Amino acid sequence: MRESLKKQVEFISELEKLKTVFRQNQTLDGDRYENSAEHSWHAALMVILFADYAPEGTDVVRSMKMILIHDVVEIDTGDTFLYDEKRREEVAKEEETAAERIFSMLPDPQNSELLALWREFEARETPDAKFAVVMDALQPLLNHPVTRRDGQNIHNVTKSQIINKKSFIKEISPDLWEVAMDAIKRCVKKGLVKDI
Amino acid sequence: MRESLKKQVEFISELEKLKTVFRQNQTLDGDRYENSAEHSWHAALMVILFADYAPEGTDVVRSMKMILIHDVVEIDTGDTFLYDEKRREEVAKEEETAAERIFSMLPDPQNSELLALWREFEARETPDAKFAVVMDALQPLLNHPVTRRDGQNIHNVTKSQIINKKSFIKEISPDLWEVAMDAIKRCVKKGLVKDI
Repeated sequence: MRESLKKQVEFISELEKLKTVFRQNQTLDGDRYENSAEHSWHAALMVILFADYAPEGTDVVRSMKMILIHDVVEIDTGDTFLYDEKRREEVAKEEETAAERIFSMLPDPQNSELLALWREFEARETPDAKFAVVMDALQPLLNHPVTRRDGQNIHNVTKSQIINKKSFIKEISPDLWEVAMDAIKRCVKKGLVKDI
Repeated sequence: MRESLKKQVEFISELEKLKTVFRQNQTLDGDRYENSAEHSWHAALMVILFADYAPEGTDVVRSMKMILIHDVVEIDTGDTFLYDEKRREEVAKEEETAAERIFSMLPDPQNSELLALWREFEARETPDAKFAVVMDALQPLLNHPVTRRDGQNIHNVTKSQIINKKSFIKEISPDLWEVAMDAIKRCVKKGLVKDI
């Protein structure tokens, strides 16, 4: 077996670990938490579904690739809660180190290609990255009202906190912001989010 | 919110169910079984990694889309064990009915586009479908030696059974068949597969 294939197989085995990184989202089977692999699949499929709402000039294929790889760094860092501001600041450097370690398992030039794609996602500057980030931000909003029990608001999250974090969606797609606001309203109605 | 977006949100909510469909694969966290959402993410990422081994003329973006949607029918039918021949015959019709129900939740023309893509994957005739099917067949082979305990062969699967089911990979990519054979050998060595 050629060397590059061996490296790719090692990387694919490493990816198994992302199935053991758990998020704040829940699932329909009891009170299990969603892992980052499931989340990435869900958000990647949303890229296909919402492709028509991508800003002009977006290469949605690149957005899809970004979404598929965006969370692999969590193999080393774990998932960071969106509203844990302190941890979010610390984790940026750790994630960069993790990306360098994990993608360097791949052969040339795939290692640098995927590392660049991951960094582009993190920088949120190109249309492709912005659209991918919208999917990443929308997926949990659509997940909560479907999977949580009425009244379940573990972290005392408020509507204004969510709007503050997610309103960037509006600039990228007003239609998808409508989808987000509708989900937030459903969360409030179910008591999953404080109405302040 | 426009009608087509409402339908897409309903479909995205329906997809939550795939995270509760369990396969014969295992994961690294204890003896949990892998679900079809995690599997689909892993196989979609493999499309990116192994794109150079796709047969000439393959549109790997279409293969990636196929992999992301190929298992959604299991929301209705459950996962079918590869070596359960009786169930596999029965399930084909059920999967077609499931595909019609699930994709019809989407607005025009996305419903018919994704249904056609799913049927193309199932038919395994086009290069795009063939390459996607190879990823679907390789992913569990690479999963087993990493996630299973030594000697764990619940269904008494034999090497010749696996080779019989997976040797189609050879015609599509001799290099990826080498990857498959290497994984099968590792499975035999760990006692996960009988050496006959």
